[in-house]
Amino acid sequence: MIVVQKYGGSSVADKDRILNVANRIKNRIEQGDKVVVIVSAMGKTTDNLINLAKSISKNPPPREMDMLLTTGEQISIALLSIALNELGIKAKSFNAFQLNIKTTHDFTKARIKDIDSNKILKELEENSVVIVAGFQGITESGDLTTLGRGGSDTTAVAVAAKLGVNCEIYSDVDGIYTCDPRIVPNAKKLKYITFDDALELSSLGAKVLHSRSVELAKKYNVKLYCASSFTDEEGTWVVDKLPEWLEQPVVTGATIEKDQIKITLNNLPKENEIIERIFETLSNKRINIDMISMFTDKGNIHLSFSVLNDLRQTIEESIEKIDPSIEVLYQGMFDKVSIVGVGMKSSPGVAARFFKVLSKNDIIPELVTTSEIKISVLVSKDKSEQLLKELAKEFSLGG
Amino acid sequence: MIVVQKYGGSSVADKDRILNVANRIKNRIEQGDKVVVIVSAMGKTTDNLINLAKSISKNPPPREMDMLLTTGEQISIALLSIALNELGIKAKSFNAFQLNIKTTHDFTKARIKDIDSNKILKELEENSVVIVAGFQGITESGDLTTLGRGGSDTTAVAVAAKLGVNCEIYSDVDGIYTCDPRIVPNAKKLKYITFDDALELSSLGAKVLHSRSVELAKKYNVKLYCASSFTDEEGTWVVDKLPEWLEQPVVTGATIEKDQIKITLNNLPKENEIIERIFETLSNKRINIDMISMFTDKGNIHLSFSVLNDLRQTIEESIEKIDPSIEVLYQGMFDKVSIVGVGMKSSPGVAARFFKVLSKNDIIPELVTTSEIKISVLVSKDKSEQLLKELAKEFSLGG
Repeated sequence: MIVVQKYGGSSVADKDRILNVANRIKNRIEQGDKVVVIVSAMGKTTDNLINLAKSISKNPPPREMDMLLTTGEQISIALLSIALNELGIKAKSFNAFQLNIKTTHDFTKARIKDIDSNKILKELEENSVVIVAGFQGITESGDLTTLGRGGSDTTAVAVAAKLGVNCEIYSDVDGIYTCDPRIVPNAKKLKYITFDDALELSSLGAKVLHSRSVELAKKYNVKLYCASSFTDEEGTWVVDKLPEWLEQPVVTGATIEKDQIKITLNNLPKENEIIERIFETLSNKRINIDMISMFTDKGNIHLSFSVLNDLRQTIEESIEKIDPSIEVLYQGMFDKVSIVGVGMKSSPGVAARFFKVLSKNDIIPELVTTSEIKISVLVSKDKSEQLLKELAKEFSLGG
Repeated sequence: MIVVQKYGGSSVADKDRILNVANRIKNRIEQGDKVVVIVSAMGKTTDNLINLAKSISKNPPPREMDMLLTTGEQISIALLSIALNELGIKAKSFNAFQLNIKTTHDFTKARIKDIDSNKILKELEENSVVIVAGFQGITESGDLTTLGRGGSDTTAVAVAAKLGVNCEIYSDVDGIYTCDPRIVPNAKKLKYITFDDALELSSLGAKVLHSRSVELAKKYNVKLYCASSFTDEEGTWVVDKLPEWLEQPVVTGATIEKDQIKITLNNLPKENEIIERIFETLSNKRINIDMISMFTDKGNIHLSFSVLNDLRQTIEESIEKIDPSIEVLYQGMFDKVSIVGVGMKSSPGVAARFFKVLSKNDIIPELVTTSEIKISVLVSKDKSEQLLKELAKEFSLGG
């Protein structure tokens, strides 16, 4: 059976870890599987290259950044191939351009348009392990691109989708948990999770999977398997629907996102499109405005939203440009605590239980947002971990 | 005017040196030139990558070694492009595959078959500096290759040949000298040297140019200019014929190659092809047998030759395999001292003057070889520098 595996940067961080990955692949080959492997750059390679570039220029041209950063994955694939061949396993490494992984022209954040699976299939037929550089792409005009953060996961899911097979994602985390086990020690590892819940959890800061790769997996219904490359413990399957024998929990997981600030713009005029312009400007700067709250009195609008703390200066400058008279108020820092679960759709009363936990613990949230499958609150940093623990209790997220 | 420049690894070893190179290119652009730049990997990058690979496998597959090593040049071209853009100079970097630098399939020692100059010319027309990764190539079937040691020089000369322009080679050495100035302090820097003399000098250990790139330059009559990237001192032109106003010296330069051993095979049978087989075997192992001396007595052949010291074990094993009864005798270490000059062809008596210097200094050479434009002797290490100094005096190589 063909399987696509992806190993993250920490799984190939040094010589010994690369040999460990090679041995894991060897085991699969000996079980009769054919393996396509996608690898990330070793350890901190990408960050080191970025720092080197930034030491030369504060605004390096994106095309040249991609030329620089794609070397990280190329080093990994070559070394993994050398390790596999050393173990007697036939293997060949390929850059994205060699497999025609065509992307858009958006340097540093390109999107995959197509992959030519013929070469992969041909190499697999010749019983070679096919090692693919993650994160990379090539444009129609022959320029190298990168897919942005989490790009190697995207490559892996795209290759699996094209081949119509499952995708195993190995990292230093051994699966998806209901909550962060460092905060909630009896947090449970999930055997299965739906794409929707995994999407919410990953966009809420659970570090195992990148939202983009989960979106892609959902779109092409590629079953994902997340596990650790350091142990043989069972990981987590991310699937379209939970197996029928498994009861859908009301709440699948709970997360904390740290270091948010709340920005309040008071007394905005109701008449003109000032709010639209603010959101548009921030969106153009790729600032992710998160929890939004608005209320109106006597013809004026008061707007609050949360963002990551390090975006404060950019926001200040952007709003200053739109209208210097707008008063920008900052509060922080806060943490954002969320519960997630597709089961919430069919279980009324979850919000009530959530707010009961808040009031029992004397926590007054700064901001609240809800969706069909998620409730999030912005709370003071000294209360956030306590809240997470109490929510884990209330919604049976512990073991 | 279009000019091709090549900067070696030490010229781009760190951020500051890369910016220095960018400034030098900027000056040329401001003088109205169009510049194609070939760069090597930064400092010791290639050696570090080789060591990393060797820590995983003693015999890494050559294809994967080339996949690994080509990253070194890719990092350099990206960083140089970032530096040039930072200085306000439009620049774009290209891997060999992006410029269709087609090579043979001989991984780790590929030879360039053709270069598509159209893309280079198109980019130059758009007033972009074109930065090309040296050392790299791509095969017809799309595999990455490398050109072997000195490969970046080869890339530079090949690009210059294709464009029909001069090639400037910048390194940490400011030109070609008559002798090593560390041994002969008044050694002269040559303003001009012929391809033939430069070829002999570089194959005799003068480190400025790689023989292969000089051969290529000679073949396509590409004028080379060797100078330092750290100073503005005038360098050395390597040309087909010296300018007419310049008198051709009898001896152009003298060199020392250190750490040679002499291998003697006594009593080889005259009848069979044993010597042929020995030379063939060593050649297949890419062992460069240098000075050869043979004499015959009573139906037996006695053979001596010099090689680099670190090849001793390989030679021993190879000859053992051919015929275990052959007695292999080692002597060493020695240094090889040579004088070179196309002027020797038309000046009889050079050999006589050379041997007079030897006898005046009580030096008895272990081996001697001569060609039309070169005399080499293998002498004991404690005599070699003295001999070089005396030869420099005899043949007016000092300033």
